Amino acid sequence: MTASISFPVRYVETDKMGIVHHSHYPVWFEIGRTDLLRQLGKTYASLEEEGLLLPLTNLRCKYIAPARYGDEITVRTNVEKLTCARIEFAYKIYNHEETLLTVGGTEHGWTDGKLKPVNLLKKRPELYRILQASIDGGCGAGK
Amino acid sequence: MTASISFPVRYVETDKMGIVHHSHYPVWFEIGRTDLLRQLGKTYASLEEEGLLLPLTNLRCKYIAPARYGDEITVRTNVEKLTCARIEFAYKIYNHEETLLTVGGTEHGWTDGKLKPVNLLKKRPELYRILQASIDGGCGAGK
Amino acid sequence: MTASISFPVRYVETDKMGIVHHSHYPVWFEIGRTDLLRQLGKTYASLEEEGLLLPLTNLRCKYIAPARYGDEITVRTNVEKLTCARIEFAYKIYNHEETLLTVGGTEHGWTDGKLKPVNLLKKRPELYRILQASIDGGCGAGK
Amino acid sequence: MTASISFPVRYVETDKMGIVHHSHYPVWFEIGRTDLLRQLGKTYASLEEEGLLLPLTNLRCKYIAPARYGDEITVRTNVEKLTCARIEFAYKIYNHEETLLTVGGTEHGWTDGKLKPVNLLKKRPELYRILQASIDGGCGAGK
Repeated sequence: MTASISFPVRYVETDKMGIVHHSHYPVWFEIGRTDLLRQLGKTYASLEEEGLLLPLTNLRCKYIAPARYGDEITVRTNVEKLTCARIEFAYKIYNHEETLLTVGGTEHGWTDGKLKPVNLLKKRPELYRILQASIDGGCGAGK
Repeated sequence: MTASISFPVRYVETDKMGIVHHSHYPVWFEIGRTDLLRQLGKTYASLEEEGLLLPLTNLRCKYIAPARYGDEITVRTNVEKLTCARIEFAYKIYNHEETLLTVGGTEHGWTDGKLKPVNLLKKRPELYRILQASIDGGCGAGK
Repeated sequence: MTASISFPVRYVETDKMGIVHHSHYPVWFEIGRTDLLRQLGKTYASLEEEGLLLPLTNLRCKYIAPARYGDEITVRTNVEKLTCARIEFAYKIYNHEETLLTVGGTEHGWTDGKLKPVNLLKKRPELYRILQASIDGGCGAGK
Repeated sequence: MTASISFPVRYVETDKMGIVHHSHYPVWFEIGRTDLLRQLGKTYASLEEEGLLLPLTNLRCKYIAPARYGDEITVRTNVEKLTCARIEFAYKIYNHEETLLTVGGTEHGWTDGKLKPVNLLKKRPELYRILQASIDGGCGAGK
């Protein structure tokens, strides 16, 4: 399962090179994985209220073509890997002409509200199954 | 008493107009008032740990000349007004050629960690006196 | 005529107080006026390509209630005042419960691509009429 | 040769997890490589004025420990690899207690002002030599 969300480039995201500054793509990745979770029936806000955080441990981003002001951006996100302790997301970012701008990935640990690691399968088995099903393409994906 | 702090423009702060985006000046104001508090012997981090927050209630900013990448920025900050419930800061921002770029002001309420209003004179009389002295130019300014 | 646009709070926009940092509201104002122009038939991107810029000269923002992660934000924007040299926008920001979070205003000068002032009525009379009609509520508003 | 630059965490850089949001580390990397270039006698601003840009093509960032408000951050930067077409920087970020927070790397292409690739050795041989010397530790490093 791949989630897809679109939004326009914000003016503040451009820099004096006339293109979107590279530091904004990780923010767009975050919009992508938030959207994926929402499509799986879980808002990131509610996970946090329930004491489950997802701090980043790794980020990688390959820049292929620049995004520009006036572009409509689409982020396509999927769960790449899931374990009891960790989750990895993969991202592809396109403009409205379907030009691939960026590919990237993020790795996260599952933690409690105090940033201590937790075992997702033990703490939230139903969430684990939903996320695993999103990889397998199984019927548990909740949509 | 006026605090003065300097730092270079960050590339990410520019936009496609080739100048610093207007939304970064409020961040520079924040650097200015944080610096003023530090010069008065109080770090904003320690105030927060002690359960005292300063959420903004009003912001105004007049843009006179643009800041550019390569500029060294100076923020000059003073306490404009102090009451038991509120504090106002005034700011002037210059580039390294002493061109006045921006003047502004912020108003804040004193609150506890849950954003409930508090009476600063009752809760932290020594802090109240230090801040008041910074307006009066009196010897209680702790420097 | 008032334009209205909605979007979710981004995680990066929150700060350690747990609420949206005050410096992001000017960015949301920008989204609002960009949307208003688009509804009037002009994208800001195309104006810039045609050599017409709108640098800020004044910003004011009153913070009434905090925005939080999980909120869906709505920005309502209208043209407050128009002259040959300047334009003023007014903004109201609400969350999804229709709580008024912020009111603000921005003032801009009309300039060419090199930030030199221009007379909008002379340089772009049709744009001037569209914007004026959006204040008057007249039939020239292009919608 | 390794350049080292220090600055305090900005409040706006924190998020509701109470730590610095991961998207700000790429900005700190940028501060690091800008500082390295300056120590080598070249400001990034002057390179751009001379028509030489350094757009990112790859970013990686490993998050080891969180930065917090109140921390004084140090970025240590060196040139990892140089070719006629590309340059790679490596970064280590520490807090004031010398805890290693983040390690990362960025890859950039040399381009002209219109983002077209250029050959650095042909276009700017003296800059190529200075950068190469900063890897070799040779006496050409200009300091």
